[in-house]
Amino acid sequence: MQKIRLLYEGKAKRLYETNDPDLLIMEFKDSLTAFDGTKKDQMTGKGEWNNQISASIFTFLNENNVSTHFIEKLSARESLVKHLKMVALEQVCRNFSAGSIAKRTGLEEGTPFKHPVIEYHYKSDELHDPLYTEELISALELATKSEMLKFRELGLRVNDLLSDFMERRGIILVDFKLEFGYTRQGELCVGDEITPDTCRLWDKKSLDKLDKDRFRRDLGGVADAYQEVLSRLSA
Amino acid sequence: MQKIRLLYEGKAKRLYETNDPDLLIMEFKDSLTAFDGTKKDQMTGKGEWNNQISASIFTFLNENNVSTHFIEKLSARESLVKHLKMVALEQVCRNFSAGSIAKRTGLEEGTPFKHPVIEYHYKSDELHDPLYTEELISALELATKSEMLKFRELGLRVNDLLSDFMERRGIILVDFKLEFGYTRQGELCVGDEITPDTCRLWDKKSLDKLDKDRFRRDLGGVADAYQEVLSRLSA
Repeated sequence: MQKIRLLYEGKAKRLYETNDPDLLIMEFKDSLTAFDGTKKDQMTGKGEWNNQISASIFTFLNENNVSTHFIEKLSARESLVKHLKMVALEQVCRNFSAGSIAKRTGLEEGTPFKHPVIEYHYKSDELHDPLYTEELISALELATKSEMLKFRELGLRVNDLLSDFMERRGIILVDFKLEFGYTRQGELCVGDEITPDTCRLWDKKSLDKLDKDRFRRDLGGVADAYQEVLSRLSA
Repeated sequence: MQKIRLLYEGKAKRLYETNDPDLLIMEFKDSLTAFDGTKKDQMTGKGEWNNQISASIFTFLNENNVSTHFIEKLSARESLVKHLKMVALEQVCRNFSAGSIAKRTGLEEGTPFKHPVIEYHYKSDELHDPLYTEELISALELATKSEMLKFRELGLRVNDLLSDFMERRGIILVDFKLEFGYTRQGELCVGDEITPDTCRLWDKKSLDKLDKDRFRRDLGGVADAYQEVLSRLSA
């Protein structure tokens, strides 16, 4: 499988067309970005670590009958994925208060919610990925109510599986972001990546952050944290 | 019915206890405030106009079998209302894009939505009345999912009634805010006020704003706008 043409370049990944219109090659970059790309850095190795972490998680999800775009890891920083038509929403699923929801609620970080909180942000750098209620999403015809039910089911299923997967590796899944898309055949799949860039992962004992918050908040030890997650997932 | 004790003073109203524990006297003040009270002014007459406007609208809702707290107008700036235990949420119902949702969506003010958009804000000056999804409200146990369904039903019914009521008076109901509470007997009622402070009202022909946006945006003619609404409601 060969890269034919760059289809899309994002902040952390590039997507290439292949000879097969249904397949893309996803290439993970070494860049670290936060706050709509206003904070930027490079971290040698990050692309390879995230490619491997995402591959491990998507393989686990595929094995558990969750439809994802992931097919196989091709090289250190490349994976083969299904070509999806992406939904312009990010689904965030939160088990504990952290980040923006801690600010919004005034709840101390780490406070558990009575049940997982699934919310959506509209993917728009210009509008700063605003929070969109399901009501607004349906009024704007970004997704139908029946699609939202499917997104919700998928998010909760991934949360159950991934919380358990991380827990067995000594990691608390605080929250995570999913993106969805449809194959040309209309299959709904989890797309994008699942990595310490898109999850909040805390060490179960020390509660140390093992995710991009180390970069966002200048906590140091970013590379160590990503490698720690990789090593626990590989063990 | 007499005022016994000041129970609560808000930015635009005072609530007094009466001899009857189930009844309160609501007194409308002449103050105008916006942006969490950071922008303030006084407008002589405003308390009286809003008391009359709210009384007219609540009377109309009561006549249409919507449960509200309103019993009767007592004096120029006072009304008798049921004593409610308030829900700590503001329900906003929007028919057209305006204000914060115009910023959030990038949609020009006045763009109609495919269906009314009902959203909630948590009442907290400290947190700046943040947007709370139904999911978050239920996870924080601020209301149950079955309560939310009742709030929604009530909001949509008020929207239908009030849109028609305003339309017959040459006014477009762009959006409005409701607050809910429970009587001691557990009856869910619409509480608070329904006035140009809490609704966006546009003249049907000129699209002139007849509401608090004139104050928020320094458009001038605030008193004229409130009096215009009052006169159309009294006609």
